[in-house]
Amino acid sequence: MINAKGYAAQDPQADLAPWEFQVRELGPHDVQLRIMYCGVCHTDLHQIRNDWFPGIFPMVPGHEIVGEVVEIGAHVKKFARGDWAGVGVMVDSCGVCQECGHDHENQCSNGTVWTYNSLGKDGLPTYGGYANILVVNEKFALQVSKVLDPKGVGPLLCAGITTYSPLRRLNVGQGHKLAVLGLGGLGHMAVKFGLAFGADVTVLSNSPAKRYDALELGAHHFIDMSNVDEAESVKGTFDFIIDCVSAKHDLNLYLGLLANGGTHICVGIPSEPFELSPFSLLSGNKSVTGSGAGGLAETQEMLDFCAAHNITADVELIDIKNINAAFERMVRGDVRYRFVIDLETL
Amino acid sequence: MINAKGYAAQDPQADLAPWEFQVRELGPHDVQLRIMYCGVCHTDLHQIRNDWFPGIFPMVPGHEIVGEVVEIGAHVKKFARGDWAGVGVMVDSCGVCQECGHDHENQCSNGTVWTYNSLGKDGLPTYGGYANILVVNEKFALQVSKVLDPKGVGPLLCAGITTYSPLRRLNVGQGHKLAVLGLGGLGHMAVKFGLAFGADVTVLSNSPAKRYDALELGAHHFIDMSNVDEAESVKGTFDFIIDCVSAKHDLNLYLGLLANGGTHICVGIPSEPFELSPFSLLSGNKSVTGSGAGGLAETQEMLDFCAAHNITADVELIDIKNINAAFERMVRGDVRYRFVIDLETL
Repeated sequence: MINAKGYAAQDPQADLAPWEFQVRELGPHDVQLRIMYCGVCHTDLHQIRNDWFPGIFPMVPGHEIVGEVVEIGAHVKKFARGDWAGVGVMVDSCGVCQECGHDHENQCSNGTVWTYNSLGKDGLPTYGGYANILVVNEKFALQVSKVLDPKGVGPLLCAGITTYSPLRRLNVGQGHKLAVLGLGGLGHMAVKFGLAFGADVTVLSNSPAKRYDALELGAHHFIDMSNVDEAESVKGTFDFIIDCVSAKHDLNLYLGLLANGGTHICVGIPSEPFELSPFSLLSGNKSVTGSGAGGLAETQEMLDFCAAHNITADVELIDIKNINAAFERMVRGDVRYRFVIDLETL
Repeated sequence: MINAKGYAAQDPQADLAPWEFQVRELGPHDVQLRIMYCGVCHTDLHQIRNDWFPGIFPMVPGHEIVGEVVEIGAHVKKFARGDWAGVGVMVDSCGVCQECGHDHENQCSNGTVWTYNSLGKDGLPTYGGYANILVVNEKFALQVSKVLDPKGVGPLLCAGITTYSPLRRLNVGQGHKLAVLGLGGLGHMAVKFGLAFGADVTVLSNSPAKRYDALELGAHHFIDMSNVDEAESVKGTFDFIIDCVSAKHDLNLYLGLLANGGTHICVGIPSEPFELSPFSLLSGNKSVTGSGAGGLAETQEMLDFCAAHNITADVELIDIKNINAAFERMVRGDVRYRFVIDLETL
């Protein structure tokens, strides 16, 4: 086993604190990463707090990982020492089911192994990117171009693919009116991809203060949803809304902003169920769809697209000692747009 | 004005009873129908009871109308006297908006005029098919082939197009596993269309007694959802579920029966909103979509498809004097599968 160190929650009430643990020796298809940066996703906090389901503790969170390949197994083909690699939400899957066969490893019928708070095929808990070392099968490590600023790459592996995947799947682009609901970690990536795909992009927010930020990011329009006249002015106009809000909100209100045949894409995860009126769907043949992360091939495609279009997340780099304070700021929405831990500070 | 007679509700508490009223004289583009048969849709009862919104009284319901053309206006091109014509849920639209331009007259931006419980462009209430006469612009009358049994044609104009439209829009057919949830007026049409389109059709129902009926209709499989093992056996298997249930039910349960990427199509209209968990959508990139009726071109296409494939609704013909008893039986689900009023009995 290899000695590693990171920050872990010992139980759902505890703050994150330094912890030493062990990771497996490299198998023939494994690579070992020296983690350089790891993004801070709202999911990390949900999981250490058991907000959705009971977790595996101690828990080292983090699934927006970028690092340098420092060791490679005997049969590794994709990476050489010194390369940069990214790891997102998953580190293994069965590889033989229909979903894996269709490059949907994130929907593996036999159970995707998640990057942390999950059990590997060896039955041992997985530990995430708030740490110095990750050992992972090369298949689940993505190639990261050195033209990109690595500080902004980590969030592409979760916030990036989570917004890229449904926008691509639904062929959102030129001629489409796309609304981005909520301008946080996910939302700001949705704005960047929507613009890169050629859509007409509107940011919808209840915070009028975000107008400047939205336009600064390049959004064509901003609608302050707390202003009744502004909200009314966009009724029935959008082809797509990508909904990046994790707090409770009224889906029916937003379905009313869709044009006939429009699609509302849920990528935020509120803790409570939506109340969905059948009339909101029937009037205008509207759809609500969900999307969670993406498969490996699609994630590599996204990273390559980002390299070609110079897209990274806008981040605020933090010292890992400040992670608990960063969580508090994240909950208040006080971050533009993603905290990223500099693992040099570990 | 032309004297007409029918059955009307005088207020939301009243039973339907005979009523005499007047309809407009024929304009140059109008046809006058002698109504032969009119299907009894659950919507008729919802509307006379003000279940969804305040109605216009007296109300003559009925929007599954088939009749004989007995008079034609000077410029009518599509019909000759003696032809059969069908009228569904709408009798007018603006004709100039984008939706009308795309053959979505049922989603007219300036307000579709519904067949009853609606105001025409002349400001007068519209009256439906529980009557002897309908005067309608020929554009909103569909051509009905005389190869079809007219008794089973009326329900095609509402239950038929409501199920045909989304199945066609989503290209449901060969290679797809389609589940039909609820085997009533809508559901039995969904089974017929699903079979005609080449899908593998399963009926889902909480009533084990419907197994025989489902297989008799030609469904390939029947799943008794009240049997836990049977329900479990189809988890994650369907490409599409067409949800024809108007009573309250758990959408999340059915989303769990969809394969990854699957679509749940709501065509029934429960009075209460659905509770939709975001996880039900995210796990497996699933979608919920709605569909209400269809446009004129699509409705004509459906009628022509039915003529080519000898598809009509399975109906129980009733005397209009028994309409209130028929409503009671309909609410209990005691009809295979649609009551149709024989207007000869008026």
